[in-house]
This record gives sequence, structure tokens and C-alpha cells, in this order.
Amino acid sequence: MINIEPERLKQQLTFLFEIDKLKTIIRRNNLIATPERLENSAEHSWHLAFYVLALAEHANEEINVFRTMKMVLLHDIVEIDAGDTFAYDIQAVDTHDREVLAAKRIFGLLPADQAVEFMSLWEEFEAGATPEAKFAVSVDRLHPLMHNYVTGGGSWKRHDVKRPQVDKRMLPIQDGSVTLAETVKAILDDSVEQGMLKTS
Amino acid sequence: MINIEPERLKQQLTFLFEIDKLKTIIRRNNLIATPERLENSAEHSWHLAFYVLALAEHANEEINVFRTMKMVLLHDIVEIDAGDTFAYDIQAVDTHDREVLAAKRIFGLLPADQAVEFMSLWEEFEAGATPEAKFAVSVDRLHPLMHNYVTGGGSWKRHDVKRPQVDKRMLPIQDGSVTLAETVKAILDDSVEQGMLKTS
Repeated sequence: MINIEPERLKQQLTFLFEIDKLKTIIRRNNLIATPERLENSAEHSWHLAFYVLALAEHANEEINVFRTMKMVLLHDIVEIDAGDTFAYDIQAVDTHDREVLAAKRIFGLLPADQAVEFMSLWEEFEAGATPEAKFAVSVDRLHPLMHNYVTGGGSWKRHDVKRPQVDKRMLPIQDGSVTLAETVKAILDDSVEQGMLKTS
Repeated sequence: MINIEPERLKQQLTFLFEIDKLKTIIRRNNLIATPERLENSAEHSWHLAFYVLALAEHANEEINVFRTMKMVLLHDIVEIDAGDTFAYDIQAVDTHDREVLAAKRIFGLLPADQAVEFMSLWEEFEAGATPEAKFAVSVDRLHPLMHNYVTGGGSWKRHDVKRPQVDKRMLPIQDGSVTLAETVKAILDDSVEQGMLKTS
């Protein structure tokens, strides 16, 4: 590759080439459009940006939509090094340390000021404490649930996930949006009734 | 599916389910990470959001980064109905009419106020007249060029594309960013030198 000038642009392009790898990280949930294919984390992040844009009015508190969108667009980039952790995997406890290292390496490819901004957005998402992070976490939980529901069970069936596990996983949604949490409850009730999700 | 209340939320979710289809629209350029796989338009749009975020400082004029990001995230949604048009395809002239119909149908799934906002962002991108649209168009042209360059020729080689065609295609980049246009020129010179791109 040619030596790109200025140095800042070179660092930015290096980061942009690196994150292409997120398109190869495969999640456990399937697509809606072609349920035989599992989703990758880049297209998932794209979809979440629209969950934020379209659903922001349902947040419990008024949110900065731009910051929330940036959070969902970058929250999974750490998976390039750390891999995707299935929500219902018991071994998920050790992943946070690996993800911190990944965030430092990958965001560290950018010029320092941008690295700090991206790192801070990622940490805000992980901490889940601000109204923006709470809503970002809500849509991140909501999205695969919707894919499972609309495709007749999806990863719940494939991985024999039970209603109490899903209820627990969906608990943070109420902190971001009571409206969405109520919708989730109705959808899970219907999923059980339709035989897509077992209670035990 | 259960009857979701309120009606606005139902419309928003219907839109969010519909746009899942963008993940099945395959472009002509390959990934960097796994060059044997072609990119889909959803992951392309995700990547462009980061091109905007990381490179905004190189825009000729100061841009509203949030609006520019929304533009690149939604600019390809019309392909769900209209299909992806290869940049070097002569038949591309007829696609705009199909894309207008597609935008009306798909954005029209949203509540009216949101449909108007999304339609207006899409029209702004298509018109390419504002500083934000000019920069959005620039990164949309830059992105596949970078993938071709970094993977040794990519779709230029597969589709026997020549330097003058690429130069013409890249012309709008200078309207968005002279810095990026200069980088593109250097990259294309090197691509010819390295034998990735033929001059005639």
C-alpha cells in the first residue's frame, strides 16, 4: 500500500480496514428475510441503528439519538478479537476482560482523540448507566427476540432456550423503555402460546 | 403476530422487519477480511457510517455528522425493491424511477412524520447538493475503491473495469473532500502500477 498522507488519515483508514472483520463475526440469531442464514455482527449493528432511530420516542427518558446510534454501531466491534458471546452461554463471565483489550487495540488504531471518543462510547454502553446506554442496551436485547418471534422460534428452538432464561435476559429493557418491555412481555406470552418457546 | 399497541409502534416495527431484507442484497465488491465473499448492502451501510464518523474532518465544508450518518445508513434501503446497480453498468439510467417507488413504499411503512424525515434524507443524498450529501456520496464512492485496492484489484479485475471508468466514477469525491480525492488519485496511480487496474 502507498504511504497515505497525512498521518491522521492513514490511521483512520487503517481502522476502517480493520473493522471490516466484524462482517465475519457470526451471531446465533437468524435473519428474518432468509431464516436459513445467521446474522453477522456488522449487519446486526446496522439494523440496531434503525431500531434507535425509529423507536427513540419510546425511551423512558429523552435521549441524545446521535450518541445512542454511535453506541449501537460500535458496541460489537470488540467481537473482532473477543468473538460473539451467545446471550445464554454460561461461560460469558470471562469475556469482559477480553473485550476491554480488544477495544483498546482496535479503537487504538485511530488518532488519539478519536480513540478516546470511541472508547468512551463503548464504556458507556457497557456500563449501561446513562439514558442513552440504557436505551441502546434495550434495543440490543429486543432485536434478536424480534427475529426469533417473527421466524417462529429461531435461536430459542435451535438452542433449547426456555422462557425464564429469556425473561431474565430481557429484564434490562424496562430500564430503557417501559413501552418496549410491555410489548416484549406480550410477545413472549404469545410465543409460549404458539409453541415457539417452552416454559420449562 | 400479536396486535402490537400503540399503532405507531406497530408501524415502526413493521418497517424494522422489512428492512432486514437489505442484508440479502449482494453488491459487486468483496470484503477485505474474506475477499471470497461479496458484501451485502446492510454491512456496506454500517461500514459507511464509520467512514463518515472517522473521516468527517476531511470534508471541504463543515458537515452535520449526525445527518450525514443517517443518510449513508439509509441510502441503499431502496435496493430492497430496486436491486443493487453496479456502478459500471450502462443500464443504470432507468433505476432512479424504480428507486423512488421503493423509497415511497418502504419509508411509507413508518408513521407519517418519520416517513417524511427518511424520504427527505434519501432525496438529499440522491440530489447530492448539500455539504452533507456531497460528503456522503464521497465516502460511498471511496469505500468500494478501498476494498478493491486493499484486496489486489477486486471487482475491477472481475468485471474488467478500466482506469478511465474509475476516474469518472470517483469525480464527485472532490466535491465532498479534496483531501480524499487526492488520496484516491494516488491510490489509482499505484493500482495501475501494481497491475490491479488497466488503463485501457
